[in-house]
Amino acid sequence: MSGMKITSFSVHDIRFPTNVTGDGTDAMNKECDYSAAYIVIKTSGELQGQGMTFTIGRGNEICCFAIEQVAKRIVGMDVETIFGDMGAFFEFLTMDPQHRWLGPEKGVIALATAAVSNAIWDMMAKSRKKPLWKLICDFTPEEFVKCCAWKYISDAITKEEALELLRAKESGKKAREEEVIKRGYPAYTTSAGWLGYSDEKVKRLVLEGLAEGFNHFKLKVGADPEDDLRRGLLIRSLIDDPANRPKDKVIDPKTIAGKNASATGCVLMVDANQVWDVPQAIEYMKKLEPIKPWFIEEPTAPDDCVGHAAIRKALKPYGIGVATGEHSHNRMNFKQLLQLDAIDVCQIDSCRTSGVNEILTILLMAAKFGVPVCPHSGGVGLCEYTIHLSLIDYIAVSGDMDRNVLEFVDHLHENFLYPCSINADGRYNVPLNPNEGYSIEMYPKSMEEFAFPNGAYWVKAARGGAATEAQHRLAGQAVH
Amino acid sequence: MSGMKITSFSVHDIRFPTNVTGDGTDAMNKECDYSAAYIVIKTSGELQGQGMTFTIGRGNEICCFAIEQVAKRIVGMDVETIFGDMGAFFEFLTMDPQHRWLGPEKGVIALATAAVSNAIWDMMAKSRKKPLWKLICDFTPEEFVKCCAWKYISDAITKEEALELLRAKESGKKAREEEVIKRGYPAYTTSAGWLGYSDEKVKRLVLEGLAEGFNHFKLKVGADPEDDLRRGLLIRSLIDDPANRPKDKVIDPKTIAGKNASATGCVLMVDANQVWDVPQAIEYMKKLEPIKPWFIEEPTAPDDCVGHAAIRKALKPYGIGVATGEHSHNRMNFKQLLQLDAIDVCQIDSCRTSGVNEILTILLMAAKFGVPVCPHSGGVGLCEYTIHLSLIDYIAVSGDMDRNVLEFVDHLHENFLYPCSINADGRYNVPLNPNEGYSIEMYPKSMEEFAFPNGAYWVKAARGGAATEAQHRLAGQAVH
Repeated sequence: MSGMKITSFSVHDIRFPTNVTGDGTDAMNKECDYSAAYIVIKTSGELQGQGMTFTIGRGNEICCFAIEQVAKRIVGMDVETIFGDMGAFFEFLTMDPQHRWLGPEKGVIALATAAVSNAIWDMMAKSRKKPLWKLICDFTPEEFVKCCAWKYISDAITKEEALELLRAKESGKKAREEEVIKRGYPAYTTSAGWLGYSDEKVKRLVLEGLAEGFNHFKLKVGADPEDDLRRGLLIRSLIDDPANRPKDKVIDPKTIAGKNASATGCVLMVDANQVWDVPQAIEYMKKLEPIKPWFIEEPTAPDDCVGHAAIRKALKPYGIGVATGEHSHNRMNFKQLLQLDAIDVCQIDSCRTSGVNEILTILLMAAKFGVPVCPHSGGVGLCEYTIHLSLIDYIAVSGDMDRNVLEFVDHLHENFLYPCSINADGRYNVPLNPNEGYSIEMYPKSMEEFAFPNGAYWVKAARGGAATEAQHRLAGQAVH
Repeated sequence: MSGMKITSFSVHDIRFPTNVTGDGTDAMNKECDYSAAYIVIKTSGELQGQGMTFTIGRGNEICCFAIEQVAKRIVGMDVETIFGDMGAFFEFLTMDPQHRWLGPEKGVIALATAAVSNAIWDMMAKSRKKPLWKLICDFTPEEFVKCCAWKYISDAITKEEALELLRAKESGKKAREEEVIKRGYPAYTTSAGWLGYSDEKVKRLVLEGLAEGFNHFKLKVGADPEDDLRRGLLIRSLIDDPANRPKDKVIDPKTIAGKNASATGCVLMVDANQVWDVPQAIEYMKKLEPIKPWFIEEPTAPDDCVGHAAIRKALKPYGIGVATGEHSHNRMNFKQLLQLDAIDVCQIDSCRTSGVNEILTILLMAAKFGVPVCPHSGGVGLCEYTIHLSLIDYIAVSGDMDRNVLEFVDHLHENFLYPCSINADGRYNVPLNPNEGYSIEMYPKSMEEFAFPNGAYWVKAARGGAATEAQHRLAGQAVH
């Protein structure tokens, strides 16, 4: 592949009409069409890279436009030179003074950089005939550290500390890889707990989840405390009842330690999607003490590390932890959350920070601070991405998957060539196809049908054909 | 004006070729063409609003594209309904779930929102026949508070506290307005201290600054400590020498209290433009103790409130303060800087947070925490904008301009209908034209000549006509 160059790229605005059913809402995001700002990077050889960032509809075109501007800078570059120093490539993308001015390292320019960076990682993994997680887990500690984003975080972790941490995990990597391939990676479901659902529907979905082997459930809260308490108690009554728990689904006690689990081994989490100010969050959550959640997710603005620390401290006597990160925009934000003891769970997002390199850095910081990583997932493409990140965390970085649990939502996977999947114990299967890269390649048919605004679906919808087959297929699919 | 609607808008990518001279560089931004992503909002009447956000070149087209998407949402709205509740309008702009996803409230979507929001404020001020500062200073405390951005900050300041603070300043407003109109608002110059300048040029520019009445000078640092120390000592030797200080320029001792001023009343500041990690910043700045700077500006990543707090604490024994804010993306970031005692000086930017409403909130928080506000300025249009913000701070909020000082750079003002200006004491004149709004209206000729890429200047430059008249005019103009 010597001399192979990046020759061109195409950017695609792909939107799935998840808004049509009217459900799938949380306290902040009341309407949304799950969307991908998607890039295909082409080379002078056969090799291609696919990458995307995720939005919830309008604004996806801004990300697409920004992706074009970022990608222009890499056309003509030598592919193996990029692969030879992915850390330098990340710096090339993020430290360009003029593009950096638009963030720095946050918002649209970071979302766009993530799409491009993820596509290059996808390309590298495919060129090495390994899924992304395997490519990175096979790195030596030195190679791993060379790929990370190091600027601005040395007061939290140094390269030397990272090397030490990775070296300590080297000898166990093979065994952990074998174990997770056999057992799968722990997952949880948000399917049951949307704000708009009737009690009847919540009940049905919780029972289905239990039957499928899930033992972690998430409830959206924040619109009305009485309502949340009632729905929370309903879910608790279902998951606490041994009769509802299949006998053949075994729960390792380690996986529920410190999570306010019931005797049946089931765990409840709640998610406010940033609706509260800090004092509001504290008062509201005290009222939800009876439902014993493991954590409150996104209680306030994602930037507010000081606020999260205050909430965590105030809720500690009530046995309620704090989780955030899906809207944390970069490693500096995660650094502060960790330095201030603001979180019990670190919820990285695969599309929001500037790509895999920065994620690796955050995994290292979380491991050093002893905080479990439970990535944000769902949407479109996020589950495909995040299983790779959780595997890297388990096999190469933290060495622990008992504390962790990766969000799973069963929708839109049919659009991907290598969709993620869940085993009979309610755990993620490990992606193993040597051609799948970062697992984000979409079927051309899906890309065409849902291209916005000129794909077949949207043209039909614009003509008033709202309740199409596609919409029926998507009914009940929702925002995370 | 009853019934007047917003009917349309135009967006303009305007770039000034400030990069051609090769100077005007700092440790982070080594190339830049000062650029405006500019919007003109039109109504069904005569009234128009002008607004812009600022970038340093490439990427300006992303902001322009985003401004179009944000502005689309306001076409058809009733003008007086907007003016009647500017707080609700700000919420309409920033709390749209789909656009919010792209930040939230940061990066390109915030830069674009600032341009649109600023244009509406400009429009409102023009409709009331007052410059923006006067419009807002004439608000009652209740009207002022109604315009602010309140979400996510009640752990730092409540509406009630803000009302109390504003009411306490009511009786002195008239006297302060008269005083500042008479004396002007304190300014400082960054013109002398660019990294790329020879010692000879630095010396000439410092002496010129002293002659013009300036007594605050800023030096860019961060490339090499030996070099910075030498240049800093050179500047100190010039500003500390009474012979260089014009006898007729009187300095009020209050304006230099706590600023490491020399016996001549001159103050030196240094600016690193985010080049360091936290431990690096501390070590580097200890070496610059001999030049006795008032503060180090932007020592590290703008998001890192914890890091700034650590740097401030470490440098306190050396008598060096910390300033930041020009890249702080929203009120939550400023809130944390204040809560963590991380800054001695709060450097708001007129284009980076989501517009005037959010600035008002930050002014209130800074006043409550007792931190002086010294806006970031320079670039293109920033000085025109920021004098309004400093006047609001002085007249209506903090009631203090002795501690403050507003950045001034003498370039690109000729492109504006109502350019800012400096009086004989080196202080900003107060904008007084009842038609100038937020003072950001550009001459059509400038907008045409520097439109990118099809304006006359850029067409000529693309044909190889690099050293045009415009470039010569711009020679020596630089990045802030």
